[in-house]
Amino acid sequence: MLYYIGVDIGGTSIKVGLVTKEGELLDSLSIPTLKEEYTVTISKITKGIDELMARNKVKKISGIGIGVPGVTNPEEGTVIKAPNINWKNVNFAADFKNKYKCKVAMENDANCAAVGEYFFGLKERPDNAIFITLGTGIGSGVIINQQLYRGNGFAAGEAGHMTIIKDGILCNCSRKGCWEKYASATALIQQTKDEIKKSPKSLLAKIAKEENVVNGQTAFKAYRKKDPAGKRVVEQYLDYVAVGLVNLAMLLHPSCFIIGGGISNEGQLLIDMLQERVDKALNQSGFLPLVEIRKANLLNKAGILGAAKLSV
Amino acid sequence: MLYYIGVDIGGTSIKVGLVTKEGELLDSLSIPTLKEEYTVTISKITKGIDELMARNKVKKISGIGIGVPGVTNPEEGTVIKAPNINWKNVNFAADFKNKYKCKVAMENDANCAAVGEYFFGLKERPDNAIFITLGTGIGSGVIINQQLYRGNGFAAGEAGHMTIIKDGILCNCSRKGCWEKYASATALIQQTKDEIKKSPKSLLAKIAKEENVVNGQTAFKAYRKKDPAGKRVVEQYLDYVAVGLVNLAMLLHPSCFIIGGGISNEGQLLIDMLQERVDKALNQSGFLPLVEIRKANLLNKAGILGAAKLSV
Repeated sequence: MLYYIGVDIGGTSIKVGLVTKEGELLDSLSIPTLKEEYTVTISKITKGIDELMARNKVKKISGIGIGVPGVTNPEEGTVIKAPNINWKNVNFAADFKNKYKCKVAMENDANCAAVGEYFFGLKERPDNAIFITLGTGIGSGVIINQQLYRGNGFAAGEAGHMTIIKDGILCNCSRKGCWEKYASATALIQQTKDEIKKSPKSLLAKIAKEENVVNGQTAFKAYRKKDPAGKRVVEQYLDYVAVGLVNLAMLLHPSCFIIGGGISNEGQLLIDMLQERVDKALNQSGFLPLVEIRKANLLNKAGILGAAKLSV
Repeated sequence: MLYYIGVDIGGTSIKVGLVTKEGELLDSLSIPTLKEEYTVTISKITKGIDELMARNKVKKISGIGIGVPGVTNPEEGTVIKAPNINWKNVNFAADFKNKYKCKVAMENDANCAAVGEYFFGLKERPDNAIFITLGTGIGSGVIINQQLYRGNGFAAGEAGHMTIIKDGILCNCSRKGCWEKYASATALIQQTKDEIKKSPKSLLAKIAKEENVVNGQTAFKAYRKKDPAGKRVVEQYLDYVAVGLVNLAMLLHPSCFIIGGGISNEGQLLIDMLQERVDKALNQSGFLPLVEIRKANLLNKAGILGAAKLSV
């Protein structure tokens, strides 16, 4: 049997997994991390790999895939920039290649998750699919002809920074009206807070007060209890998500969208409400066929499995 | 030598060309047409092909490509719908296949133009490029890995219907805020008329009055003469065009955009002003590399050459 390693580097932890070619996660571990020198991270990952190999009695690794929250050059194995963990122009693919004598793949984390969900989360794989993660921001990965599409300079897949409202809300990217300013979990939380201010006596406000927090679930909880304020927030939020999905359909018309990220935990309710909105837009404008919306299935395993797959 | 036929069906004329494999247009003719039964169109095209073959002493055609202003199923050779010429679920590929004993390709006209410009209008061909035509509407064709990308149901490439202003101007497609409502030639004409109303004493208004028409060139003429009203119109219009191009760059990050359609006749001025805007957005947000903007070179030959290429 051939064994692969998938690594998912995040802002607070590094997940390392031992994976088969078919995408079975045999064992994994999580290592806490801080914003630290990349050399520290390398030694932590190495320790993690060695531990997984030892405790699973694996003698040889056939490939290592590493997902990074930033822009990578997968051909050279370089992290061009990863602002959240303070890396810039870092290349450590060679270190792993020398130590483990195997292929090493470096890739953006949303792309890894897209590959993981596409290859191991779907029962049937259409030729073209777009993975969207509704989290702190909006990440995306584009699969075309059953392959990850990277674009020039490996810079494709920034759907979260498509403008949906020209001259709209200022984004961290310094431009205005980006999709993620309206449709990320962060945006939903802001929209929920705004509605609570407007409707302080609503069930929505009550839930937030009782739980002493406003998060991406607050509005959905109120919605499920038929609270009008919660309904307003959720419906408006999903309108924003749908506008971006329809834009992707107009340009690329994939067979399906795969929705991941924290918001996707709302499950079938979310998927059904999005499907209804996207169907309506495509039916209304006549740009058919419809595009199926599916929930990401692998949760936080997607990044590990996708990274490992890219090293096959 | 192998000979191919490219056909470009428009609202008022059908262009038929005799083309080599290398994209040389040996001879062509244009046939006036009305909104007529597709059987009438077929016989006109057949006559055109026969005439081109006779007067060029060509005995055998190796392929026929037909560009249609609508949605086609290139695999089955069906025109699914072409509202401008009143066709719906029409299939006449077999008629040509039987008569000329060669491959017949049916394709959307913007896709044909994209293929023509990509294969025969560029000196160097990058892997990925997006062709955009700024005309009555906005058409587009997406080239990925040196191939026309069609999407599920052959429905990809409707960039003109991406939303850039949610809840914005109502579009013919029945949705709101589509890119083409702001960045097509039609939109520019409307924007020019609006400015003339606001600035009746401007040079812009004077030019329109003298020429007794407002068209896609009016504002550019005033701009070139440093008229402030013309400047306002052109700069705002190009901001709209640029927003859509940046959206395409965010998602697909092609190596280049190829700009065609009537507006592209403004030439280098247009290209430079667009390049400046798109560069600024990408530099500012850090989503690099830059994307080169090129002018379409083949003018109204693009559709014929692209259609012929698709039949090779």
